[in-house]
Amino acid sequence: MAKIIYLDNAATTQTDSKVLGKMLPSFTKEYGNASSSHFFGKQARESIEKAREIIAKKLNSSPEEIIFTSGGTESNNLALKGLFFNSRNRELGKNHIITTKIEHDCILNTCKWLEKQGAKVTYLDVDNQGLVNPKEIVSAITPSTLVVSIIQGNNEIGTLQDIKEIGKICKKKGVYFHIDACQSFTKTPIDVKKHNLDLVTINAHKIHGPKGVGALFIKKGTKIEALLNGGGHERGLRSGTENTSGVIGFGEAVRISKTQDINKIQKLRDYFIKQLLKIEKTKINGSLKNRLANNINLSFGDIEGEAISSHLENFGIVISTGSACASHTLKKSHVLKAIGCNDLEINSSIRISLSKYNTKTHVDYFIKKLKPVVKTLRQMSPYATT
Amino acid sequence: MAKIIYLDNAATTQTDSKVLGKMLPSFTKEYGNASSSHFFGKQARESIEKAREIIAKKLNSSPEEIIFTSGGTESNNLALKGLFFNSRNRELGKNHIITTKIEHDCILNTCKWLEKQGAKVTYLDVDNQGLVNPKEIVSAITPSTLVVSIIQGNNEIGTLQDIKEIGKICKKKGVYFHIDACQSFTKTPIDVKKHNLDLVTINAHKIHGPKGVGALFIKKGTKIEALLNGGGHERGLRSGTENTSGVIGFGEAVRISKTQDINKIQKLRDYFIKQLLKIEKTKINGSLKNRLANNINLSFGDIEGEAISSHLENFGIVISTGSACASHTLKKSHVLKAIGCNDLEINSSIRISLSKYNTKTHVDYFIKKLKPVVKTLRQMSPYATT
Repeated sequence: MAKIIYLDNAATTQTDSKVLGKMLPSFTKEYGNASSSHFFGKQARESIEKAREIIAKKLNSSPEEIIFTSGGTESNNLALKGLFFNSRNRELGKNHIITTKIEHDCILNTCKWLEKQGAKVTYLDVDNQGLVNPKEIVSAITPSTLVVSIIQGNNEIGTLQDIKEIGKICKKKGVYFHIDACQSFTKTPIDVKKHNLDLVTINAHKIHGPKGVGALFIKKGTKIEALLNGGGHERGLRSGTENTSGVIGFGEAVRISKTQDINKIQKLRDYFIKQLLKIEKTKINGSLKNRLANNINLSFGDIEGEAISSHLENFGIVISTGSACASHTLKKSHVLKAIGCNDLEINSSIRISLSKYNTKTHVDYFIKKLKPVVKTLRQMSPYATT
Repeated sequence: MAKIIYLDNAATTQTDSKVLGKMLPSFTKEYGNASSSHFFGKQARESIEKAREIIAKKLNSSPEEIIFTSGGTESNNLALKGLFFNSRNRELGKNHIITTKIEHDCILNTCKWLEKQGAKVTYLDVDNQGLVNPKEIVSAITPSTLVVSIIQGNNEIGTLQDIKEIGKICKKKGVYFHIDACQSFTKTPIDVKKHNLDLVTINAHKIHGPKGVGALFIKKGTKIEALLNGGGHERGLRSGTENTSGVIGFGEAVRISKTQDINKIQKLRDYFIKQLLKIEKTKINGSLKNRLANNINLSFGDIEGEAISSHLENFGIVISTGSACASHTLKKSHVLKAIGCNDLEINSSIRISLSKYNTKTHVDYFIKKLKPVVKTLRQMSPYATT
């Protein structure tokens, strides 16, 4: 196997060695239960609170507004189910959720489940770049609307929504605003105050932290209840022995995240896109302007994305053809469908997602290997016209 | 600070260095998303499936019956809520849960929450050793009973229930049987077939594995639904990017667990108890016969457990005065109350929980340091009569 060029950072990232180094003592030395009242517990508690402070600061929130979870999926489930059940258990009469057709499966399937429990859900359309129209949010809000839940940076096509504008609307209308920021956190500024955010889902493994840990920002005063009941950890909002190692890693990953890295990635992405568009019949999916710094989603039109991807694997190049999570279902991308891609465009799409570890050499190698692959596949394709 | 003698292994354990060693490559080298279809994903998938096989074998179950979660609390929530919502969404008319008064807070508070959703819950009494009477389970079962949920080895007093007998009853009556085995897993045999178990909650951090990972054994055919909706991971029963490192660590912790270690711990516990009972007015809480190999719960009668514990801390000795999880609430132990302890016995109790890393030297040092502490505290105690 050739040297690996990992370009699937939207699926998950390499844990930074600094992050791992920071985590290590918590396994075999400072391994106390953070809820124990002895010094061994307090030591773990301190590490957790330090991480909470770092993360809170990054979002311009207070530490007590950060609730640690097992990851993005749990945070998204907690956000919507927590709001819904609180409203129902208190008979507040708010059972309407507004979201979009391009959310991650953990929002869409949570919404579907909540519909079985009596929730009403509006799934908003997006335009051909993946942008939701804030005016449609205004129109969709009714007196029974509980929350607007939007993915800030889409995991497949990278489209960044105008959360500032949507935040203003939600504040004005008095409905909660939740964003799924798993892909966008540390890659684009999130200021819970400026953007009027009530709930923000984030996680560690997309930003060179460990898997199995995430958080939900919950604005003070938000009427929400726990999804996991138990010993009352995390201010009663998320029970379960604290994952000290994971939380420490999450904090360190946020601490060492740098705007310079993101700027570098974005420049590399733009260079990459330029090279890719030189290949005949390629087309970028999503918005070129409002886009995650590390995302490229490309359609070839006449050849299978899966075939391209598996050919590139032979050269040690790792990309994907959609979200990793959707690989369980083998269904066509609902995101590409929502932005109006036809079946050929969907089937011929690949997703390339960069990290700080990628270089121009990687891009040049990729393009060099891609060109003959595309040529060969097109020669075999029944759809190819050239 | 003196050398640390850690005797709070019921709260959490030191991660075994072999376990950590096995986990390390998954952070910085084999860090793929196990749901990705490329080789990098498959590599992670393989590691996860190996761990699943090890754990399944330990329970005498099939690998596909093991669902990884973020820990014991999540597994317990998934078990009860998953069964309840499945029954309700399918209108099966089963809304009755039978449990005991000495369960962990994550069962008790899940039950309380489910009561708000329409569940009926029977909380069975236990005898003065903490044993539930199987006949009372028989009497409690009604046509609407969905599940009997019992903690196999109590986290505070260590009492081991007769799960074989209860399993027989549940099978005969056609109700699901769930055990919370967080404290007992690898410490006492669990055979899902012999014991007629439908659901078993286990986790890693109590057995020298990492925090933030657990599992739920779900017998094939059990009518249950997911608590976390999303990408359909874990056979659709637990969505969220797989915590590869955590799962690998869990598997390794189970693989290296040894009956010899447990036998050694049990012998040490018995020696420890003998020494402790030599101190005037001490009393063991729970059963001497049916008891977790590593648990000691002791009442002094006339002095505060908290005071004993904090004095021992000065000598580097770490014990607890109840479950770590309950430290959030500062309420009196519901377990000691349920076995009939009076307030003095409850307030004067300490919990000592051993691991394979403890030795006779630790015990002797403990006893040596404890005696003068008890003497001093008794001299100051308003309750002391000697």
